[in-house]
Amino acid sequence: MKTQYADIKSIMDPKSVAVIGASEKPEKVGHIIMQNYLDVGFQGPIYPININANGKLMGRQAYRTILDVKKPIDLAVIAIPAEMVPEALEQCGKAGVKGVVIVSGGFAEVGRKDLEEKLVKISKKYKLPFIGPNCLGVMDLRARNDTLFLPTYKIDRPKIGGVSFVSQSGSVGSSTLDLISGEGFGLAHFISYGNASVVDEVDILNYLANDPDTKVIVFYLEGARRGKEFIEVARKVTQQKPIVIIKGGISPAGVGAAHSHTASLAGSYEAYEAVFRQNGFVIADELDDLLYYAKIFETQPLTTGNRIAVITNGGGHGVLATDALYKYGLTFPELTKKTTTALRKAMPPVVNVGMPMDIGGEANSQRYMEALNILNEDPNVDAFMVITLFQTPGADEKLADSLIQFASQKKKPVVAVATGGNYTKTHVALLEGSGVPVYDSPTSAAKALSALIGYAKYKKRMI
Amino acid sequence: MKTQYADIKSIMDPKSVAVIGASEKPEKVGHIIMQNYLDVGFQGPIYPININANGKLMGRQAYRTILDVKKPIDLAVIAIPAEMVPEALEQCGKAGVKGVVIVSGGFAEVGRKDLEEKLVKISKKYKLPFIGPNCLGVMDLRARNDTLFLPTYKIDRPKIGGVSFVSQSGSVGSSTLDLISGEGFGLAHFISYGNASVVDEVDILNYLANDPDTKVIVFYLEGARRGKEFIEVARKVTQQKPIVIIKGGISPAGVGAAHSHTASLAGSYEAYEAVFRQNGFVIADELDDLLYYAKIFETQPLTTGNRIAVITNGGGHGVLATDALYKYGLTFPELTKKTTTALRKAMPPVVNVGMPMDIGGEANSQRYMEALNILNEDPNVDAFMVITLFQTPGADEKLADSLIQFASQKKKPVVAVATGGNYTKTHVALLEGSGVPVYDSPTSAAKALSALIGYAKYKKRMI
Repeated sequence: MKTQYADIKSIMDPKSVAVIGASEKPEKVGHIIMQNYLDVGFQGPIYPININANGKLMGRQAYRTILDVKKPIDLAVIAIPAEMVPEALEQCGKAGVKGVVIVSGGFAEVGRKDLEEKLVKISKKYKLPFIGPNCLGVMDLRARNDTLFLPTYKIDRPKIGGVSFVSQSGSVGSSTLDLISGEGFGLAHFISYGNASVVDEVDILNYLANDPDTKVIVFYLEGARRGKEFIEVARKVTQQKPIVIIKGGISPAGVGAAHSHTASLAGSYEAYEAVFRQNGFVIADELDDLLYYAKIFETQPLTTGNRIAVITNGGGHGVLATDALYKYGLTFPELTKKTTTALRKAMPPVVNVGMPMDIGGEANSQRYMEALNILNEDPNVDAFMVITLFQTPGADEKLADSLIQFASQKKKPVVAVATGGNYTKTHVALLEGSGVPVYDSPTSAAKALSALIGYAKYKKRMI
Repeated sequence: MKTQYADIKSIMDPKSVAVIGASEKPEKVGHIIMQNYLDVGFQGPIYPININANGKLMGRQAYRTILDVKKPIDLAVIAIPAEMVPEALEQCGKAGVKGVVIVSGGFAEVGRKDLEEKLVKISKKYKLPFIGPNCLGVMDLRARNDTLFLPTYKIDRPKIGGVSFVSQSGSVGSSTLDLISGEGFGLAHFISYGNASVVDEVDILNYLANDPDTKVIVFYLEGARRGKEFIEVARKVTQQKPIVIIKGGISPAGVGAAHSHTASLAGSYEAYEAVFRQNGFVIADELDDLLYYAKIFETQPLTTGNRIAVITNGGGHGVLATDALYKYGLTFPELTKKTTTALRKAMPPVVNVGMPMDIGGEANSQRYMEALNILNEDPNVDAFMVITLFQTPGADEKLADSLIQFASQKKKPVVAVATGGNYTKTHVALLEGSGVPVYDSPTSAAKALSALIGYAKYKKRMI
């Protein structure tokens, strides 16, 4: 089997862009996309195209069709009614455009398979790859490329980073994208690919596999069009970088809902899951897991060991951490004699030296660091879960600072647990802004550690 | 079996308070507690007690011992080193104090069972109930009673409402308390009861059962000291109001951790769970569930029907909702002919009339309301999951307003799903501030609906 990949380089990192459907009317999708390109400071020429154009549109020379531009165009974004899309795509082909994003809906997902087949034919004729239809398109912060037709004030734009997020669904894509900046990790690429009638999950995965900016790939998938090829590519990718995946349409009724949504043929979940597992995917059960996993993989070193040292300033969270480790197949380290002796000396008498180690509700930065530095030397400790409840008197900005320093050694994975209101959120932002992933419960922290360890074991077996 | 209940009325709603261990030093627990009483505007007299007192403390006449006050005292809060607590408690008994909160730690949880037994003896001698030791104590916003020794700037205080939250653990209690205001529901009472050597879960449950302000009881339990009596009381309570419960210490190692935390003997989880189910408890698996369940029970009417109408402005979320309903034993309604005809007329042609109903990424308040009002008349619809992704152009404050109006009929349960960054959070706060519980994913919304329906069915069977 020889897999063919559509080349989407011009779609992801274009040097020039045309927006077909550009408009002065602020509620029009074409207007929002034009405005995005102006807002993000796209560095190349931007050509507004509108069939009724006459002179300028949004301050730029406008054209009635893309054929009138007569300059090289890497990417055309099409945002016009479905019926008019085939003609516009044909003109893109004639104009020598290198790649297209069709955001318009109204194709196979509403029963207009005929209209979508027309697009595929045109694409083949001109060897012109397109993403969509029925999608949000792409966002590449480094290339300042942004086809999302959602008002900028409604979405928090993430910082630049190493996570690429691919979503078949626009709504799952955009709402999750909107959460990324709050979770403190950074985005490489965002791709919402909708009906995938030409560029599909295989092409996208292949592109991200070879993209040096992408350290972690996160996927929301309803159904793979080219299942075998997808797995074939993924098998190679997971030996290099993790693919976190969530599958929509896992219940019998969900399969049907997925079909009417993106016209995809979602297979049985059990079949998908087995194949995902065999090929080193990191499987997410819930949308939250996508974020939980993305941030640990972006920031923490891998380890195959499952012995987690837990220190806490709240006893109840120690109990919950114990339950959570058990639930996710993790365990406590058996501390060496040297470690327990050193801890006994360093900690106040009231602290029980053992796991989970409750260092007291009054513990401050200094006590945390004494405990962590001793535990860090113990060869039986593979990773850390540091519970820092910021409601307590001793937990403050200094603790966040020290923990950032400690984690920056990147010797063993470190995750923090903190949950609460405004004071806590401020300190969580400090930690996450500097590469310490924070979880809202011992359960979500254990789940993320377990995902990291599971992937590390897979990778070790395969290489 | 005749269950005896300690009377904790004077602890929860005191008319006068003494703080034993009051201090001018801001880092002292006794200082923080005094400051709380001053900050929340406690209406009765507040007496600072300190063995070294001489004149005034924090602007109030101070006393060396509680015996020197010579006025009636409802509640004494003890915040001094463990070794000194027995004598202070004895003096409370002699002074005729009606109830005590002992926040000090250093008793059975660190192996000093002897010291704790002394306290129990004194309590019996004077018929003086106390909460603790090793606890945060109580918060009653209506009574302006607040013994929490956590700096006020570190915890968001919730608004007054109908949820009472009881936690054996201080850390689980305080961090969860800190989340309540962000979840938009209101607090009746907060009780962190620690080692429970006198006042225990049975006394507290009995008090809340008879408290008219408490509509929902939320419990974090590590182990019940009087298991049989706890269940006996709970069985009566759950016929009146829901008890949402989470058990800490469910793994073999977790049982041990719970013992060294609050000296409680946590039994096997399977045994607990079976008894909880038989007696109508609403069981939470994760800390998040406590909040998810509390807010639906506080605001929504009960229903025994499990047919959930789902409308959404994002297709992917419709797919995930379908999976989520299936996972939690819920289903879609079979819409009547009348309903589908009316919807077909009201919705644009591109909308598939059926469940889940994707009303389009451009849907605005008007379209949502047309759909909801038609579905509301359908006898086959038992409850609503309304997915409102605020990243889309049509979803705005007007949509939040209309949904609040719609839900305020309290005819059928309504939950919303929205997730995202700052713009979304602002609108979620609007919804939750006006009694519409919002969930961050279809999964958590379905789980909460399933809990509501499960409890409603239990209650119907029992009454």
